[in-house]
Amino acid sequence: MINNCVFCSIIGHEIPSATIYEDDFVKAILDIAPSAKGHTVIIPKNHCSDIFELTEEEASHVFVVAKKIAGVLKEELGCDGVNILQNNGRAAGQTVFHFHMHIIPRYENDTVNIHWDTKSYEEGEMQKLADSITHKLHV
Amino acid sequence: MINNCVFCSIIGHEIPSATIYEDDFVKAILDIAPSAKGHTVIIPKNHCSDIFELTEEEASHVFVVAKKIAGVLKEELGCDGVNILQNNGRAAGQTVFHFHMHIIPRYENDTVNIHWDTKSYEEGEMQKLADSITHKLHV
Repeated sequence: MINNCVFCSIIGHEIPSATIYEDDFVKAILDIAPSAKGHTVIIPKNHCSDIFELTEEEASHVFVVAKKIAGVLKEELGCDGVNILQNNGRAAGQTVFHFHMHIIPRYENDTVNIHWDTKSYEEGEMQKLADSITHKLHV
Repeated sequence: MINNCVFCSIIGHEIPSATIYEDDFVKAILDIAPSAKGHTVIIPKNHCSDIFELTEEEASHVFVVAKKIAGVLKEELGCDGVNILQNNGRAAGQTVFHFHMHIIPRYENDTVNIHWDTKSYEEGEMQKLADSITHKLHV
Protein backbone atom coordinates (compact mmCIF):
# COMPACT_ATOMS: atom_id res chain seq x y z
CA MET A 1 0.00 0.00 0.00
CA ILE A 2 1.36 3.38 -1.02
CA ASN A 3 0.05 6.63 0.43
CA ASN A 4 -1.68 8.88 -2.07
CA CYS A 5 -1.98 6.09 -4.63
CA VAL A 6 -5.57 6.12 -5.87
CA PHE A 7 -5.53 2.43 -6.81
CA CYS A 8 -4.08 1.41 -3.44
CA SER A 9 -6.88 3.43 -1.83
CA ILE A 10 -9.47 1.61 -3.96
CA ILE A 11 -7.94 -1.75 -3.01
CA GLY A 12 -7.99 -0.70 0.65
CA HIS A 13 -11.69 0.34 0.34
CA GLU A 14 -10.86 3.94 1.26
CA ILE A 15 -12.22 5.01 -2.13
CA PRO A 16 -15.35 3.25 -3.42
CA SER A 17 -15.33 1.51 -6.80
CA ALA A 18 -17.65 -0.50 -9.01
CA THR A 19 -15.81 -3.81 -8.71
CA ILE A 20 -16.55 -6.48 -11.28
CA TYR A 21 -13.93 -9.06 -10.26
CA GLU A 22 -11.61 -9.69 -7.35
CA ASP A 23 -9.26 -12.47 -6.25
CA ASP A 24 -6.09 -12.74 -4.15
CA PHE A 25 -3.93 -11.00 -6.75
CA VAL A 26 -6.05 -8.49 -8.67
CA LYS A 27 -9.14 -6.36 -8.60
CA ALA A 28 -11.03 -5.26 -11.72
CA ILE A 29 -13.15 -2.11 -11.59
CA LEU A 30 -15.19 -0.05 -14.01
CA ASP A 31 -13.29 3.09 -15.05
CA ILE A 32 -15.09 6.19 -13.70
CA ALA A 33 -14.15 8.18 -16.82
CA PRO A 34 -14.74 5.49 -19.44
CA SER A 35 -14.15 5.57 -23.17
CA ALA A 36 -17.43 3.64 -23.31
CA LYS A 37 -19.67 1.95 -20.75
CA GLY A 38 -18.00 -1.18 -19.43
CA HIS A 39 -14.44 0.19 -19.82
CA THR A 40 -12.57 -1.76 -17.14
CA VAL A 41 -9.17 -1.54 -15.47
CA ILE A 42 -7.46 -4.50 -13.81
CA ILE A 43 -5.11 -3.59 -10.97
CA PRO A 44 -2.80 -5.85 -8.98
CA LYS A 45 -3.40 -5.71 -5.22
CA ASN A 46 0.29 -5.33 -4.46
CA HIS A 47 1.48 -1.88 -5.45
CA CYS A 48 3.82 -1.85 -8.42
CA SER A 49 4.35 1.12 -10.71
CA ASP A 50 4.43 -0.57 -14.06
CA ILE A 51 5.09 -3.74 -16.07
CA PHE A 52 8.77 -3.57 -15.13
CA GLU A 53 7.93 -3.96 -11.42
CA LEU A 54 5.18 -6.55 -11.91
CA THR A 55 6.15 -10.06 -10.81
CA GLU A 56 6.02 -12.92 -13.32
CA GLU A 57 3.27 -14.54 -11.27
CA GLU A 58 1.18 -11.37 -11.47
CA ALA A 59 1.91 -10.97 -15.19
CA SER A 60 0.78 -14.53 -15.80
CA HIS A 61 -2.44 -14.00 -13.88
CA VAL A 62 -3.46 -10.55 -15.08
CA PHE A 63 -3.86 -11.47 -18.74
CA VAL A 64 -5.90 -14.58 -17.91
CA VAL A 65 -8.27 -12.31 -15.99
CA ALA A 66 -8.23 -9.81 -18.89
CA LYS A 67 -9.25 -12.58 -21.30
CA LYS A 68 -12.17 -13.62 -19.09
CA ILE A 69 -13.40 -10.06 -18.65
CA ALA A 70 -13.00 -9.25 -22.36
CA GLY A 71 -15.24 -12.22 -23.20
CA VAL A 72 -17.92 -11.18 -20.73
CA LEU A 73 -17.82 -7.53 -21.83
CA LYS A 74 -18.34 -8.60 -25.44
CA GLU A 75 -21.30 -10.75 -24.40
CA GLU A 76 -22.81 -8.18 -22.01
CA LEU A 77 -22.37 -5.10 -24.19
CA GLY A 78 -22.50 -6.57 -27.69
CA CYS A 79 -19.53 -4.39 -28.59
CA ASP A 80 -17.80 -4.74 -31.98
CA GLY A 81 -14.31 -5.24 -30.56
CA VAL A 82 -12.07 -4.89 -27.53
CA ASN A 83 -8.66 -3.30 -26.97
CA ILE A 84 -6.32 -4.38 -24.23
CA LEU A 85 -4.05 -1.44 -23.42
CA GLN A 86 -1.42 -1.15 -20.74
CA ASN A 87 0.65 2.02 -20.48
CA ASN A 88 4.08 2.29 -18.83
CA GLY A 89 5.62 5.71 -18.27
CA ARG A 90 4.31 9.23 -18.72
CA ALA A 91 5.47 9.23 -22.37
CA ALA A 92 3.23 6.19 -22.93
CA GLY A 93 0.18 7.96 -21.47
CA GLN A 94 0.39 6.48 -17.97
CA THR A 95 -1.22 8.87 -15.48
CA VAL A 96 -1.68 6.65 -12.40
CA PHE A 97 1.60 5.08 -11.37
CA HIS A 98 0.16 1.82 -10.12
CA PHE A 99 0.18 -0.84 -12.87
CA HIS A 100 -3.20 -1.14 -14.59
CA MET A 101 -4.52 -2.84 -17.69
CA HIS A 102 -7.37 -1.26 -19.64
CA ILE A 103 -10.06 -3.40 -21.25
CA ILE A 104 -11.75 -1.10 -23.72
CA PRO A 105 -15.04 -2.02 -25.44
CA ARG A 106 -14.95 -0.79 -29.04
CA TYR A 107 -17.67 0.19 -31.49
CA GLU A 108 -17.63 1.18 -35.14
CA ASN A 109 -17.17 4.97 -35.30
CA ASP A 110 -16.48 5.44 -31.58
CA THR A 111 -14.11 8.16 -30.31
CA VAL A 112 -11.19 5.90 -29.45
CA ASN A 113 -8.22 6.80 -31.62
CA ILE A 114 -5.10 4.65 -31.69
CA HIS A 115 -2.67 5.63 -34.40
CA TRP A 116 1.00 5.96 -35.23
CA ASP A 117 3.08 6.94 -38.24
CA THR A 118 5.07 3.94 -39.40
CA LYS A 119 8.84 4.13 -39.59
CA SER A 120 11.30 1.95 -41.50
CA TYR A 121 14.66 0.29 -40.95
CA GLU A 122 17.82 0.76 -42.98
CA GLU A 123 19.11 -2.35 -44.79
CA GLY A 124 20.38 -4.85 -42.20
CA GLU A 125 19.39 -2.64 -39.26
CA MET A 126 16.34 -4.69 -38.23
CA GLN A 127 18.24 -7.98 -37.99
CA LYS A 128 21.09 -6.31 -36.10
CA LEU A 129 18.63 -4.90 -33.55
CA ALA A 130 16.84 -8.28 -33.32
CA ASP A 131 20.17 -10.00 -32.59
CA SER A 132 21.01 -7.50 -29.87
CA ILE A 133 17.56 -7.83 -28.21
CA THR A 134 17.72 -11.64 -28.46
CA HIS A 135 21.12 -11.61 -26.78
CA LYS A 136 19.82 -9.47 -23.88
CA LEU A 137 16.72 -11.67 -23.52
CA HIS A 138 18.91 -14.70 -23.01
CA VAL A 139 21.42 -13.20 -20.59
CA MET B 1 -1.86 -23.32 -39.47
CA ILE B 2 -4.30 -21.33 -41.55
CA ASN B 3 -3.76 -20.71 -45.26
CA ASN B 4 -3.21 -17.08 -46.17
CA CYS B 5 -2.55 -16.09 -42.56
CA VAL B 6 0.60 -13.97 -42.58
CA PHE B 7 1.48 -14.84 -38.98
CA CYS B 8 1.00 -18.58 -39.58
CA SER B 9 3.32 -18.19 -42.59
CA ILE B 10 5.92 -16.46 -40.42
CA ILE B 11 5.64 -19.22 -37.80
CA GLY B 12 6.00 -21.82 -40.58
CA HIS B 13 9.10 -20.01 -41.92
CA GLU B 14 7.43 -19.39 -45.29
CA ILE B 15 7.81 -15.65 -44.70
CA PRO B 16 11.06 -14.43 -43.07
CA SER B 17 10.97 -12.38 -39.90
CA ALA B 18 13.36 -10.74 -37.47
CA THR B 19 12.66 -13.02 -34.52
CA ILE B 20 13.71 -11.83 -31.08
CA TYR B 21 12.18 -14.62 -28.98
CA GLU B 22 10.69 -18.06 -29.53
CA ASP B 23 9.48 -20.92 -27.34
CA ASP B 24 6.95 -23.75 -27.65
CA PHE B 25 3.95 -21.42 -27.42
CA VAL B 26 4.87 -18.04 -28.91
CA LYS B 27 7.16 -16.22 -31.28
CA ALA B 28 8.09 -12.53 -30.94
CA ILE B 29 9.17 -10.60 -34.01
CA LEU B 30 10.06 -7.04 -34.88
CA ASP B 31 7.17 -5.31 -36.67
CA ILE B 32 8.18 -4.53 -40.27
CA ALA B 33 6.17 -1.28 -40.19
CA PRO B 34 7.08 -0.10 -36.70
CA SER B 35 5.86 2.92 -34.76
CA ALA B 36 9.49 3.13 -33.63
CA LYS B 37 12.53 0.88 -33.88
CA GLY B 38 12.11 -2.15 -31.65
CA HIS B 39 8.29 -2.25 -31.99
CA THR B 40 7.56 -5.94 -31.39
CA VAL B 41 4.60 -8.25 -31.85
CA ILE B 42 4.15 -11.49 -29.90
CA ILE B 43 2.16 -14.16 -31.71
CA PRO B 44 0.99 -17.54 -30.43
CA LYS B 45 2.16 -20.47 -32.55
CA ASN B 46 -1.29 -22.03 -32.63
CA HIS B 47 -3.59 -20.01 -34.83
CA CYS B 48 -6.32 -18.19 -32.95
CA SER B 49 -8.06 -15.07 -34.18
CA ASP B 50 -8.21 -13.03 -31.03
CA ILE B 51 -8.25 -12.96 -27.24
CA PHE B 52 -11.59 -14.77 -27.22
CA GLU B 53 -10.06 -17.81 -28.93
CA LEU B 54 -6.79 -17.74 -26.98
CA THR B 55 -6.47 -20.55 -24.40
CA GLU B 56 -5.96 -19.67 -20.74
CA GLU B 57 -2.54 -21.32 -20.87
CA GLU B 58 -1.54 -19.12 -23.82
CA ALA B 59 -2.99 -16.01 -22.13
CA SER B 60 -0.98 -16.76 -19.01
CA HIS B 61 2.22 -17.19 -21.00
CA VAL B 62 1.96 -14.33 -23.48
CA PHE B 63 1.98 -11.54 -20.90
CA VAL B 64 4.95 -13.03 -19.05
CA VAL B 65 6.84 -12.93 -22.35
CA ALA B 66 5.57 -9.37 -22.97
CA LYS B 67 6.93 -8.29 -19.57
CA LYS B 68 10.36 -9.76 -20.33
CA ILE B 69 10.53 -8.15 -23.76
CA ALA B 70 9.29 -4.77 -22.48
CA GLY B 71 12.12 -4.75 -19.94
CA VAL B 72 14.75 -5.58 -22.53
CA LEU B 73 13.40 -3.03 -25.03
CA LYS B 74 13.59 -0.31 -22.37
CA GLU B 75 17.18 -1.29 -21.60
CA GLU B 76 18.25 -1.70 -25.24
CA LEU B 77 16.55 1.40 -26.64
CA GLY B 78 16.50 3.72 -23.64
CA CYS B 79 12.91 4.58 -24.52
CA ASP B 80 10.80 6.78 -22.20
CA GLY B 81 7.92 4.32 -21.92
CA VAL B 82 6.23 1.26 -23.37
CA ASN B 83 2.66 0.50 -24.41
CA ILE B 84 1.26 -2.99 -24.50
CA LEU B 85 -1.60 -3.04 -27.01
CA GLN B 86 -3.70 -5.94 -28.16
CA ASN B 87 -6.55 -5.34 -30.60
CA ASN B 88 -9.56 -7.61 -31.08
CA GLY B 89 -11.92 -7.00 -33.97
CA ARG B 90 -11.82 -4.66 -36.94
CA ALA B 91 -13.54 -1.93 -34.88
CA ALA B 92 -10.63 -2.16 -32.43
CA GLY B 93 -8.04 -1.69 -35.18
CA GLN B 94 -7.19 -5.36 -35.68
CA THR B 95 -5.95 -5.91 -39.24
CA VAL B 96 -4.33 -9.37 -39.03
CA PHE B 97 -6.77 -11.91 -37.66
CA HIS B 98 -4.24 -14.01 -35.78
CA PHE B 99 -3.94 -12.90 -32.16
CA HIS B 100 -0.97 -10.59 -31.60
CA MET B 101 0.24 -8.35 -28.81
CA HIS B 102 2.11 -5.15 -29.64
CA ILE B 103 5.00 -3.95 -27.50
CA ILE B 104 5.48 -0.33 -28.46
CA PRO B 105 8.54 1.67 -27.37
CA ARG B 106 7.47 5.24 -26.55
CA TYR B 107 9.32 8.54 -26.60
CA GLU B 108 8.36 12.05 -25.56
CA ASN B 109 6.79 13.75 -28.59
CA ASP B 110 6.63 10.62 -30.75
CA THR B 111 3.82 10.09 -33.29
CA VAL B 112 1.89 7.47 -31.33
CA ASN B 113 -1.53 8.83 -30.47
CA ILE B 114 -3.84 6.98 -28.10
CA HIS B 115 -6.87 9.00 -27.11
CA TRP B 116 -10.58 8.76 -26.34
CA ASP B 117 -13.33 11.12 -25.27
CA THR B 118 -14.51 10.16 -21.80
CA LYS B 119 -18.15 9.29 -21.23
CA SER B 120 -20.14 9.19 -17.99
CA TYR B 121 -22.71 6.98 -16.30
CA GLU B 122 -26.17 7.99 -15.12
CA GLU B 123 -26.79 7.73 -11.35
CA GLY B 124 -26.81 4.05 -10.35
CA GLU B 125 -26.00 2.85 -13.88
CA MET B 126 -22.35 1.97 -13.20
CA GLN B 127 -23.12 -0.27 -10.22
CA LYS B 128 -25.97 -1.95 -12.11
CA LEU B 129 -23.64 -2.76 -15.02
CA ALA B 130 -20.93 -3.92 -12.60
CA ASP B 131 -23.41 -6.30 -10.94
CA SER B 132 -24.48 -7.71 -14.29
CA ILE B 133 -20.86 -8.26 -15.45
CA THR B 134 -19.91 -9.81 -12.09
CA HIS B 135 -22.83 -12.21 -12.37
CA LYS B 136 -21.76 -13.32 -15.88
CA LEU B 137 -18.12 -13.69 -14.74
CA HIS B 138 -19.20 -16.15 -12.06
CA VAL B 139 -21.61 -18.25 -14.13
